[in-house]
Amino acid sequence: MLHLVGLGLSDETDITVKGLETVKKAARVYLEAYTSILLVDKSVLEKYYGREVILADREMVESSSDEILRDAQTLDIAFLVVGDPFGATTHTDLVLRARELSIPIRTIPNASIVSAIGSTGLQLYNFGQTVSMVFFTDSWKPASFHDRIRENRTIGLHTLVLLDIKVKEQSLENLARGIRIYEEARYMTVGQCCQQMLEIEEIKRAEGEGMEGVYSGESLAVGVARVGGKDEKFVSGTLEQLCEVDEVLGGPLHSLVLLGRRTHELESDYVREFAVDKELWDTIWKRDYEGKQ
Amino acid sequence: MLHLVGLGLSDETDITVKGLETVKKAARVYLEAYTSILLVDKSVLEKYYGREVILADREMVESSSDEILRDAQTLDIAFLVVGDPFGATTHTDLVLRARELSIPIRTIPNASIVSAIGSTGLQLYNFGQTVSMVFFTDSWKPASFHDRIRENRTIGLHTLVLLDIKVKEQSLENLARGIRIYEEARYMTVGQCCQQMLEIEEIKRAEGEGMEGVYSGESLAVGVARVGGKDEKFVSGTLEQLCEVDEVLGGPLHSLVLLGRRTHELESDYVREFAVDKELWDTIWKRDYEGKQ
Repeated sequence: MLHLVGLGLSDETDITVKGLETVKKAARVYLEAYTSILLVDKSVLEKYYGREVILADREMVESSSDEILRDAQTLDIAFLVVGDPFGATTHTDLVLRARELSIPIRTIPNASIVSAIGSTGLQLYNFGQTVSMVFFTDSWKPASFHDRIRENRTIGLHTLVLLDIKVKEQSLENLARGIRIYEEARYMTVGQCCQQMLEIEEIKRAEGEGMEGVYSGESLAVGVARVGGKDEKFVSGTLEQLCEVDEVLGGPLHSLVLLGRRTHELESDYVREFAVDKELWDTIWKRDYEGKQ
Repeated sequence: MLHLVGLGLSDETDITVKGLETVKKAARVYLEAYTSILLVDKSVLEKYYGREVILADREMVESSSDEILRDAQTLDIAFLVVGDPFGATTHTDLVLRARELSIPIRTIPNASIVSAIGSTGLQLYNFGQTVSMVFFTDSWKPASFHDRIRENRTIGLHTLVLLDIKVKEQSLENLARGIRIYEEARYMTVGQCCQQMLEIEEIKRAEGEGMEGVYSGESLAVGVARVGGKDEKFVSGTLEQLCEVDEVLGGPLHSLVLLGRRTHELESDYVREFAVDKELWDTIWKRDYEGKQ
């Protein structure tokens, strides 16, 4: 049987009791380690589980899934995923392949950023579609997130923005030469995300797309770091203010929520507690959000 | 400190290791038991935790929150919530009150139906806002869910529909007389939900609201039962077909996903596996969904 086990968001003790039992009795244990990370190392997990954990990078999951699934018709194989197994990234490919091989599948859910973001006090009912923000390069600035945010904002909804992580990436030069040297891991910060959002908004406005724009430097948002962890951190403010809060937020992982105008007063009460500047928060709240439907 | 502890979706072993440690050492343990339920009784939890669990019904949480928070400035109080503490229902009131009383707060996230619904194979990125469906009465058929679904469908997104549960409810007669006798618990089924959805669609069309309608008996959907449990069950088909699948789905809790047209082919591949009638699924998929953006 293939057991897809969610690890939750923070450390080794965020696994469920059911998940831990499964890991302990599995024949092999893989850790999917390229779409998100825990705040602890693999070695901590291995010590905690009392057994070896095999790191499954993108290459392995996408090209060598049959190795992961080997003998899973009769053996228990645990495939560990940070967050929920079907959270921000789905592993439907692996599961479809398991089905083809007549391997039974079991899912052990866990917290995902998509639901844990509720700890900001923003109601999950008021969220539209989730978007991803990738690291821009000089020549590559994918802007489809902007369309998705426009759709959400048109109907007044919040947008959760998930931020890029780069682990085990090769430089273009090393890639071209086939040299397996990997760059240092990079995790996008709330500040970088806000800057990229404002950059694209500016480009779109210059292109004359929509007179009113989708958001601005004065749009209200919440930056979060290490949600679910002991030192989780929330900072709220305008997109412009949030460009400058990386030091306050501290280490990875970061995420961002852009507020929709359909925000309930209780939500604002809750979130203003974390405001960089409560006075400015109140002013913009009253002007652009309060009572809007 | 007030510890908000998520219990996950299914049984006593879905709590996280961190959550279990917190419950074991807390001075008092409350279980919020009116917005969702586990598939096991309170007595099972008490045995598993080795301690008393105080049932917190709506009345207690809304009117007697100070009793729950008593001495939490110095004692550890655990407030257990099925799913994630900030999942389908938020407990921001309780937390805001705790803040007023200078009580530190900690959240221990867990799986929520809002993210675990990804185990259908439908991508969480493609979900719009979540809606709730309440039990209709002869005179009360709230239809705001229909507006929300229209908004989601306009931009091509899936809609997760969370279904009403009635626990510890009094009949109107007993309520009027102040008699504290409670009705048997009721859990809405996928069949009831689909019937109510089609009823409202029919009323709206008769009122001439939008020539094309929002959905129809031929719209594709997935009914789910006991997500995350050992006997979780998925059935996919048209809304009309799903009116008749309650026996196949079995006991509570049920939820529903109405597909958006922006469905990816991999999602359909995954979900058609559960189809009541694969041939009809393919026909409607090709006609109304495939390649639509």
